[in-house]
Amino acid sequence: TTGTGTHLLETINNSDANIDDIGTYDDFHTIDWLREMSRNRLRHRQILYRKKESFFRTLKGLHDAWSGWLVVLLVGLAAGTCAGLIDIVTKWLTDVKLGTCSGKFWLNQESCCWNSHTAEPSGTGCSEWKTWATIFGVENTLIFASLAALLVKMFAPYACGSGIPEVKTILSGFIIRGYLGKWTLLIKSITAPLAVASNLSLGKEGPLVHIASCCGNIFAHLFPKYGKNEAKKREVLSAAAAAGVSVAFGAPVGGVLFSLEEVSYYFPMKTLWRSFFCALTAAFILRSINPFGNSHLVMFYVTYNKPWFLFELVPFALIGALGGLYGAAFIHANLAWCKFRKNSKLGNYPILEVVVVTFITAAASYPNPYTRIDASMMIAELVKECGPVMQNNLLVKISQRCQSFSNLALALLFKGIITVFTFGIKVPTGLFIPSMGVGAIMGRLIGVGVEQLVYNYPDCALWKTSCHAGHSCVTPGLYAMVGAAATLGGVTRMTVSLVVIMFELTGGLQYIVPLMAAAMFSKWVGDAFGNEGIYDGHIRLNGYPFLDNKEEFTHTTLATDVMRPRRGDQPLTVIEQEGMTVGDLEHLVRTTKYNGFPVITSHESQQLIGYLYRRDLILALGGQMARLNVIVETPINSLVYFTLHAPTPSLGGANDPVPLRLFNIVDLSPITVTDHTPMEIVVEIFSKLG
Amino acid sequence: TTGTGTHLLETINNSDANIDDIGTYDDFHTIDWLREMSRNRLRHRQILYRKKESFFRTLKGLHDAWSGWLVVLLVGLAAGTCAGLIDIVTKWLTDVKLGTCSGKFWLNQESCCWNSHTAEPSGTGCSEWKTWATIFGVENTLIFASLAALLVKMFAPYACGSGIPEVKTILSGFIIRGYLGKWTLLIKSITAPLAVASNLSLGKEGPLVHIASCCGNIFAHLFPKYGKNEAKKREVLSAAAAAGVSVAFGAPVGGVLFSLEEVSYYFPMKTLWRSFFCALTAAFILRSINPFGNSHLVMFYVTYNKPWFLFELVPFALIGALGGLYGAAFIHANLAWCKFRKNSKLGNYPILEVVVVTFITAAASYPNPYTRIDASMMIAELVKECGPVMQNNLLVKISQRCQSFSNLALALLFKGIITVFTFGIKVPTGLFIPSMGVGAIMGRLIGVGVEQLVYNYPDCALWKTSCHAGHSCVTPGLYAMVGAAATLGGVTRMTVSLVVIMFELTGGLQYIVPLMAAAMFSKWVGDAFGNEGIYDGHIRLNGYPFLDNKEEFTHTTLATDVMRPRRGDQPLTVIEQEGMTVGDLEHLVRTTKYNGFPVITSHESQQLIGYLYRRDLILALGGQMARLNVIVETPINSLVYFTLHAPTPSLGGANDPVPLRLFNIVDLSPITVTDHTPMEIVVEIFSKLG
Repeated sequence: TTGTGTHLLETINNSDANIDDIGTYDDFHTIDWLREMSRNRLRHRQILYRKKESFFRTLKGLHDAWSGWLVVLLVGLAAGTCAGLIDIVTKWLTDVKLGTCSGKFWLNQESCCWNSHTAEPSGTGCSEWKTWATIFGVENTLIFASLAALLVKMFAPYACGSGIPEVKTILSGFIIRGYLGKWTLLIKSITAPLAVASNLSLGKEGPLVHIASCCGNIFAHLFPKYGKNEAKKREVLSAAAAAGVSVAFGAPVGGVLFSLEEVSYYFPMKTLWRSFFCALTAAFILRSINPFGNSHLVMFYVTYNKPWFLFELVPFALIGALGGLYGAAFIHANLAWCKFRKNSKLGNYPILEVVVVTFITAAASYPNPYTRIDASMMIAELVKECGPVMQNNLLVKISQRCQSFSNLALALLFKGIITVFTFGIKVPTGLFIPSMGVGAIMGRLIGVGVEQLVYNYPDCALWKTSCHAGHSCVTPGLYAMVGAAATLGGVTRMTVSLVVIMFELTGGLQYIVPLMAAAMFSKWVGDAFGNEGIYDGHIRLNGYPFLDNKEEFTHTTLATDVMRPRRGDQPLTVIEQEGMTVGDLEHLVRTTKYNGFPVITSHESQQLIGYLYRRDLILALGGQMARLNVIVETPINSLVYFTLHAPTPSLGGANDPVPLRLFNIVDLSPITVTDHTPMEIVVEIFSKLG
Repeated sequence: TTGTGTHLLETINNSDANIDDIGTYDDFHTIDWLREMSRNRLRHRQILYRKKESFFRTLKGLHDAWSGWLVVLLVGLAAGTCAGLIDIVTKWLTDVKLGTCSGKFWLNQESCCWNSHTAEPSGTGCSEWKTWATIFGVENTLIFASLAALLVKMFAPYACGSGIPEVKTILSGFIIRGYLGKWTLLIKSITAPLAVASNLSLGKEGPLVHIASCCGNIFAHLFPKYGKNEAKKREVLSAAAAAGVSVAFGAPVGGVLFSLEEVSYYFPMKTLWRSFFCALTAAFILRSINPFGNSHLVMFYVTYNKPWFLFELVPFALIGALGGLYGAAFIHANLAWCKFRKNSKLGNYPILEVVVVTFITAAASYPNPYTRIDASMMIAELVKECGPVMQNNLLVKISQRCQSFSNLALALLFKGIITVFTFGIKVPTGLFIPSMGVGAIMGRLIGVGVEQLVYNYPDCALWKTSCHAGHSCVTPGLYAMVGAAATLGGVTRMTVSLVVIMFELTGGLQYIVPLMAAAMFSKWVGDAFGNEGIYDGHIRLNGYPFLDNKEEFTHTTLATDVMRPRRGDQPLTVIEQEGMTVGDLEHLVRTTKYNGFPVITSHESQQLIGYLYRRDLILALGGQMARLNVIVETPINSLVYFTLHAPTPSLGGANDPVPLRLFNIVDLSPITVTDHTPMEIVVEIFSKLG
């Protein structure tokens, strides 16, 4: 009958926890925002209180106040550096795929030929630059892709995919240990350039958000204020996500809005300002590294000479609607394919899948000049006015093919299909660039169509006043830009951040109305076919708990219906303030699976006192016994009490009651709702208060 | 003993309320966000439910779904049109002040001389343009200013001031009837140009936010979805505020961020997107009206040829710190002056005050070329590279005075002081332009100083590498821009929205880092001298209830301490579910001043059932009696019950109990906290849930 707490202690030892861990969370659990916030306030108050004690304490308080800025500065620096390095390595790998610089293998083609005296004036190469004797360069892409998949599989399984769905889940208050760790950071930073260089239909923009979040997580651990408080840590992670988008597109404002609109859950105004600082620092560092070789912060810098006209809003809306359609179709197809992969044997051969997809991509994309070149370079070409482009010894004169309908249409078809199968393979896969690529092709096609229409029927009332005869008043490049925004909007269902990112990406304020129109129609049409974006879809697919604070719920049930145990479930349990024994509690922990238990005065008058977390209860029981050196002796029928004073010991008499209150583990401020509260209000409280 | 409900009915008649008014609010009361939200959900569900009934209902449902977009579209159109008209009228008034076009009084100087053949090549005037024979043009400014003050005093007292503090208070859930009405809109639209034209140190940007909010309020009333629900109405108002900033500065993104950061309280993601749409529509309309005569959406369009260098961050930070200092000083001085005005006899002579301030401004500003011209034109000049400027027959060759330290310093001193006395007089007074003006002068001064420093000491290690000898590598115009951002930030304590507005205002993405640095230092230095911006200060001064959801509270008390009646207060009261009579309730209403009462089962077991608003109780009591035709007969000792079924009538016997539950007035879903909840969590719940 002297059953000890050993069972409980085992549980504790298994999870490597000690008494200090009270208030931490298990893996794959959600955090309690309110509790974290009040813990932070307590800590803050302690610092303020101790400030007067000594100079050292004052300094410590100052450090604490500054650490918020310091950590986002560090994250911004790290994210900018990572992005710069990744850009440079990607460029180098893209060239190494095709050849090497004799004697100086670390130089890419441009740098190699820069110092050479034998450079051909057309810029197609030099004698120092040795092109591999390969067919199509397919062998190297296969090596890159399988290397990336192997690294991911061996060292950091979390490094695959885009990472945005998981970052979103983590920011909403879920714990996934190791997802933002240093191994993930390292492997993802190495494999992202490999994946991009292997010419797969993917981008490094989504992974950059994940990488920046890893930086945020790592630096947050340097400061106890952030590392030890899950809610505060998420402030840093929000800022890091903003920095990720900022470096991915050179769009600091868009990054902050992306973080606010798409990924973040808890976003006080203070965080907004720090996120902006973080995003700007990162963008500034990236600009200083200057990986694109031009001093523009933006990726696709365009300046059109011609304004747009009001009648063009019709084709822009059409592009938007098509983008929304594509987005809906893509989401459905990709989710179906991912589900199939998950449930079939295909999921067991990730490397083989990568190799096959790479091979198909390489073989199918070579014949077409639009798919042969890098996707982001293709977009940059499409949004420009026509002109020649040079990459990798191939002087791809897109200018000659500007009107080449068939090539563009083929590229559209191929890109649209292969991306469905690519997003989700076990290498870092970003979705921004492929989506934008598809949209840019589509937009360009429609733009050329409208141009021809206007040219052939100059007397139509719609454009007669705007376009003077003989002048071409339609800019197909603008249509490509609008198309890119439309498909990206259709796939991710972003709105404001999308428009701002596109606006920063192109640097043109006067084209914000067309972008807005396309984004609106894209969102409307997309939402008509299903309300969730690709990230929400993947969150649902992976079964992460995510309470969307943007959706409106239409539950008609009352709280009392939901909080009733379902048939076959365990009954709801409570802890009484006095009168329960250690054995009772242990039994409670062992037989139920609830995350916590309400503490009430007694079963007769059900006055609520507080709330006790399961994990804290386990730790406290174990720790309590360890501290009292009574591990063996504490009898299972010791009374446990949560009141401030021990109850009169006349009840049991045999054993000293165990004062669990000492540990401050009972949350004395639970919020309660009455049983008639409609479920929608409960959901609102959950989502607003965390 | 047959005391009737006449006293209560009187209360009702006085406030023009009837039984349908249950769920509305009194003037100067705060709204219950959660209740409004659930009312909206109920309405939404009813529409969904009825949708299947008939085609008309389907159409109605569709209209309801679209009305959200329709209303922001209308608000955007109206705000854009208002802004365009105000801009045009301002321009015309500014010219009429000095002269008139013979025969065509509605033309301003430029238009008048456009058609003239006698125009002088220098553009200084034409024979058709008759200049008034006045000294300094002071007479007309006095007429304008006193006319504006008179109109405000007679027709719409709410039209004075900037309006932003009040809009902020209203958005946080406070009711100020008539503040956003059509009279305010009309009078403010007329008086804002008059005030600007009278050369006072004020801008029309703040009033534009108020005017746009009025448009939002008026259009919201056209749609029952928004007009009848205070929470939903605030969504439209948020969008309208964004549109206001958008048209004031031609900065749609900045407007949305301003609305999000500065004025709004409740801002779901759906609102963000609609606000953006609204802001963009307004900006687009304004661009189509084209009041500035150039096709740029932006006010101070600048393109600098020279980049900025890293060492310049030091003066930028200095400018930021000075801006923060100025902001703190301005806030203190202005609040002190407003308090003095409020408490002294000065407050009784608003028109005299306006006239005096106008006279002093006009007399003091004439000798200095910087203060003589329009403030926004002065800023536009200061942020540019040096060049000639022409306005109102005065060819103000600022280019010659580009280095004129003394004039600039005098202008700085004068502007800085007069603005303190101007902001708060009884005409529409915006604060953006004067603050930016002060900052632009300060920045320009420092910029010229740095330029001289670099020029005279070209060998200093700091800038030796960046600046080649003989070249001027410092752009004083950029310093002026940074200075404008710094003072604006110091006064309003905006952060992200400030940087984005400045960035959109100037159209230069590469100067975002200097702007950010200045805004950060300005905020830090300003916050060191007092945490509140000018708007929060005025909210506090006017005694509006405003729970800032951005601040962190550091209460250490528990809920139980706060909810205890203070010494001398009435005791806390509750309503029992059964057993209270009409007389008891009437007595309760008459003797207490609480806004509502908790409803409990009985005094013995204090189980909470719901919450009853005072106003609803009064209405229900009155309505109940009116409905039963028992106004005279309902005896004061009738039992009142809130349960679903009438209690057994064996208790009183004499009178039928009154079923108050019928009206659905008891809010059955109150949220409760335990008495040990720390006050900070209570505050957090209050601010998050509204």
